[in-house]
Amino acid sequence: MSVSRYTYLGPEGTFTEAALRTLPEAATRELVPMVSVPAALDAVRSGEAGAALVPIENSVEGGVTATLDELATGEPLMIYREVLLPISFALLARPGAALADVKTVTGHPVAQPQVRKWLAEHLPDAQWESAASNADGARLVQEGRYDAAFAGEFAAVTYGLTPLVTDIHDAQNAVTRFVLAGRPARPAARTGADKTSMVLWLGDDHPGALLELLQEFAARGVNMVRIESRPTGEGIGRYCFSVDCEGHLTDRRVGEVLMGLRRTCPKVRFLGSYPRAGVRPEEVSPLRPGTADEDFSAASDWLARCLDGRG
Amino acid sequence: MSVSRYTYLGPEGTFTEAALRTLPEAATRELVPMVSVPAALDAVRSGEAGAALVPIENSVEGGVTATLDELATGEPLMIYREVLLPISFALLARPGAALADVKTVTGHPVAQPQVRKWLAEHLPDAQWESAASNADGARLVQEGRYDAAFAGEFAAVTYGLTPLVTDIHDAQNAVTRFVLAGRPARPAARTGADKTSMVLWLGDDHPGALLELLQEFAARGVNMVRIESRPTGEGIGRYCFSVDCEGHLTDRRVGEVLMGLRRTCPKVRFLGSYPRAGVRPEEVSPLRPGTADEDFSAASDWLARCLDGRG
Amino acid sequence: MSVSRYTYLGPEGTFTEAALRTLPEAATRELVPMVSVPAALDAVRSGEAGAALVPIENSVEGGVTATLDELATGEPLMIYREVLLPISFALLARPGAALADVKTVTGHPVAQPQVRKWLAEHLPDAQWESAASNADGARLVQEGRYDAAFAGEFAAVTYGLTPLVTDIHDAQNAVTRFVLAGRPARPAARTGADKTSMVLWLGDDHPGALLELLQEFAARGVNMVRIESRPTGEGIGRYCFSVDCEGHLTDRRVGEVLMGLRRTCPKVRFLGSYPRAGVRPEEVSPLRPGTADEDFSAASDWLARCLDGRG
Amino acid sequence: MSVSRYTYLGPEGTFTEAALRTLPEAATRELVPMVSVPAALDAVRSGEAGAALVPIENSVEGGVTATLDELATGEPLMIYREVLLPISFALLARPGAALADVKTVTGHPVAQPQVRKWLAEHLPDAQWESAASNADGARLVQEGRYDAAFAGEFAAVTYGLTPLVTDIHDAQNAVTRFVLAGRPARPAARTGADKTSMVLWLGDDHPGALLELLQEFAARGVNMVRIESRPTGEGIGRYCFSVDCEGHLTDRRVGEVLMGLRRTCPKVRFLGSYPRAGVRPEEVSPLRPGTADEDFSAASDWLARCLDGRG
Repeated sequence: MSVSRYTYLGPEGTFTEAALRTLPEAATRELVPMVSVPAALDAVRSGEAGAALVPIENSVEGGVTATLDELATGEPLMIYREVLLPISFALLARPGAALADVKTVTGHPVAQPQVRKWLAEHLPDAQWESAASNADGARLVQEGRYDAAFAGEFAAVTYGLTPLVTDIHDAQNAVTRFVLAGRPARPAARTGADKTSMVLWLGDDHPGALLELLQEFAARGVNMVRIESRPTGEGIGRYCFSVDCEGHLTDRRVGEVLMGLRRTCPKVRFLGSYPRAGVRPEEVSPLRPGTADEDFSAASDWLARCLDGRG
Repeated sequence: MSVSRYTYLGPEGTFTEAALRTLPEAATRELVPMVSVPAALDAVRSGEAGAALVPIENSVEGGVTATLDELATGEPLMIYREVLLPISFALLARPGAALADVKTVTGHPVAQPQVRKWLAEHLPDAQWESAASNADGARLVQEGRYDAAFAGEFAAVTYGLTPLVTDIHDAQNAVTRFVLAGRPARPAARTGADKTSMVLWLGDDHPGALLELLQEFAARGVNMVRIESRPTGEGIGRYCFSVDCEGHLTDRRVGEVLMGLRRTCPKVRFLGSYPRAGVRPEEVSPLRPGTADEDFSAASDWLARCLDGRG
Repeated sequence: MSVSRYTYLGPEGTFTEAALRTLPEAATRELVPMVSVPAALDAVRSGEAGAALVPIENSVEGGVTATLDELATGEPLMIYREVLLPISFALLARPGAALADVKTVTGHPVAQPQVRKWLAEHLPDAQWESAASNADGARLVQEGRYDAAFAGEFAAVTYGLTPLVTDIHDAQNAVTRFVLAGRPARPAARTGADKTSMVLWLGDDHPGALLELLQEFAARGVNMVRIESRPTGEGIGRYCFSVDCEGHLTDRRVGEVLMGLRRTCPKVRFLGSYPRAGVRPEEVSPLRPGTADEDFSAASDWLARCLDGRG
Repeated sequence: MSVSRYTYLGPEGTFTEAALRTLPEAATRELVPMVSVPAALDAVRSGEAGAALVPIENSVEGGVTATLDELATGEPLMIYREVLLPISFALLARPGAALADVKTVTGHPVAQPQVRKWLAEHLPDAQWESAASNADGARLVQEGRYDAAFAGEFAAVTYGLTPLVTDIHDAQNAVTRFVLAGRPARPAARTGADKTSMVLWLGDDHPGALLELLQEFAARGVNMVRIESRPTGEGIGRYCFSVDCEGHLTDRRVGEVLMGLRRTCPKVRFLGSYPRAGVRPEEVSPLRPGTADEDFSAASDWLARCLDGRG
């Protein structure tokens, strides 16, 4: 296995590469762009790479379904890090082109809703066609297939293009979240500002099953920060849920939530505990009384005393 | 400590004595009637007696508050057995008396609502006055203070009285539940048809506190079979709850409920796990899926594997 | 019907009479002591009295079961007022007697736990025997049957006795709550600091039935202030619940709770909405967002618009 | 407004057109393909079309985010019908081509995961490039840009192609759900097997907000059949939920759920009540006791009687 190699959703010049380069260890790794999320992750599964950085969620477009589905099924992987990257686009064209010349534009399908309003206002007649990635769109502009591409400004150099406009984003605060996935191992150490990810399958189509699942979290004061339903592929109406919660697997309350879910869901996949990007331990919201590790220890000591007749 | 001595709520000839005599070990114990529930229990606390049998609940009158309060406060005791005794009364009078002669009747205050309708129908003009116990009422009849007493038929011989009428009970299926309380020790072994008793104090007067407490049971599929509020003595609106649930402290689901309650309630008192009277293991309602001991073990094994990177 | 007559739990000189005299309208009513709670209430049912004042809850002893059961069953009555009375006892004896002479004491059974510790400390050898009421105990002392009685100090004059000791109460802040019950009619007008009382029967012995019932309150942000289980008389393990909550039947959130309970419980008895004693409107805890009358009106207006295609 | 015109997600020859043609009224409407979901819906908003058929959910790929987001935001629309269409693909090529000649394949991005395994097995070396729609892929094959396209078999004729393989689908039972959206009006009449759609925004990032929202459904026995989170565009961690539940807006239990949600969520958008595709009234799961319209009526009649003093 080549732990010194990290794959990422390519090609070069995408936001994913930019996100990957924010990780300190990226400086000492061989960074290999891959053609798709499954390809990037499969390289980890096969041992060709030590880890893969892939987008998982976008604050405008929502979950990246290829990533969610790859992590939920297939040979297990685990998340070790997350990276948040503010997203804004540049409109890249061949040198010498002017905005008025742009009749056709391209970009990744995920980019389209983030520039839709800008397009309607500034290039109402331009025709959009999707590209396999933002960088690929830039390449197609370089090749002359389209007049301009939406991509990260950093892609201009790679493809010999010029940014006509920069800092384009319909929504303020557009952010994409990326995760660094590797093969299963012990989770990273608890930092005090952690996140735990999992996939939960609901049992028989019984009403209230989702409610019961959420109560496992609520009963131990563990906050969910993301929940996303995904079809299981077994027909309309059958879902699994991709869930992130606050806390680390070694937090007793989180461990109890996971055990409770394991008992009540037909299937649970633990996807890792890792530091929350952009949140320092002192910024974490206070615990609900009775849910600190000491409270769990005190309760289990007390139970032991009861069993022993000294309750 | 004299384990060979059992106290009970006296005097001789009460239903409590009749209940105590249904226990096999009663045959080999010295049975000592006490003047009150606190007196019977204090003899156990002081070591003068090995255990005490006291009434705790009546299917017509509800909880026996002296017992509930004594078990909730003061030096801890534990319940080791329960006894159910069907209750019906005889009207006892001095030999030679006729029903028409009865102008004054007596009995324990708890007996009164159970014979109220019978009295209204058969002795509408008789005047009721309460006695310290049913047996004490019989004694007062023997002494000539009242014309007749409601008591267990078995009390007639003790006090030299004659049953004028037997099998009196307003409600069908009137039953009194008694508990055998001793000093704290390991609970009796699990039988498969067990009951666990506890007292729970609610925290700050926050709405929904009782709901949260009940959810600790619901989340693990543990059925409550009795809940009774009792004032804490700290003013109107401050309660603790006396609760019985199905299952034994050594059942994983029950242990988890107790630990959860311990973490969320300001105070919990474990009152014992003991065989359910009148219920055989094969009659116990089926467990909710995911709540058997094996399910808890499997979940905690899985958690250990996750912590170890082999989830 | 004689609305000008109010009955109360007698005899004269009890705390109930003292509580009744705190009501302004008592000055213009004929106040008639009755021998028991059922008798006081039956006089209202039959039309002989306009209302009855009876004790319902004691901060030390808990619910007054005769009152709870009478209100839960039989011909319906409704609560129109509540009165809180701080409870402390005087030890009354015949003139000339000294504390050292007291060998036998009496009082209502409810008084006993409230003076237990005082007795153990000051008259450890005195024998307690219960009386039908505190005032009746005073009468029995007057008649010479006992040496002293625990009663309200105000009873001394009525029975020609002398207070040996006053202000006796084991618990600080001992309070008894009384209710004024009348025949069903429109509830008293909303004051902004109201209470609503009801009795709820649980359905089939299904686990979680109590939880569902509490969720009807929680879902609308209505705080329960008292819950007391009472046996239904149909056997051990069958309960109904006597419940008080904050708010008035004309508050939309309270009306919705009651309708929800009516749909999910096999039986509900509304016992009245009335001003909370000792709480002014400005002291009432703030409503949960979304539960004010305006919120309910806005929601139902919106629903009407949706039904009309203008949502 | 041209109610006689229906738009749909084009171009001609897509599954959406096939789904639209299953509706009886389609035979009497002018069916106009549009370039995108927003374009199809905007034609309805502007009055150029009476309704639009768009895909909303795929049993393999999950929610169609363009549709979910368009219905959640912008000028309100309402759903009047749903259509379920089993999805299987044909691989279309130019006449005379053989499977062995296929080096490049195309199709809509949503098609890709549904044929991924088939591709890996039968055409492991073929290169995939996404097209704007399945039909557009067929057109690009016709033009010679790619060797083959995945599309519905019905598209072969339109584009002069030949199906090389038919009935390709990785998952059994792959189904796409389409909705017919129009401008807000009274919902279609209740059929007894109905579905109600809505979008719910959660309030302040308070833990348990989603749980409370689900309890509004659970408390009235209303089953949720789909829940999908969507980013609100206000930053990572801010979601709204697209929800379908059983029942019709005119069902009292559904109306109460909606009113409860309206009171507790900062924003609710009602998206319509319409017949459930593929479910007949007799196949609908039985109501939970106490949640039929009669139960709601009985409860509100009872409340009125209570308010009137005749409870």
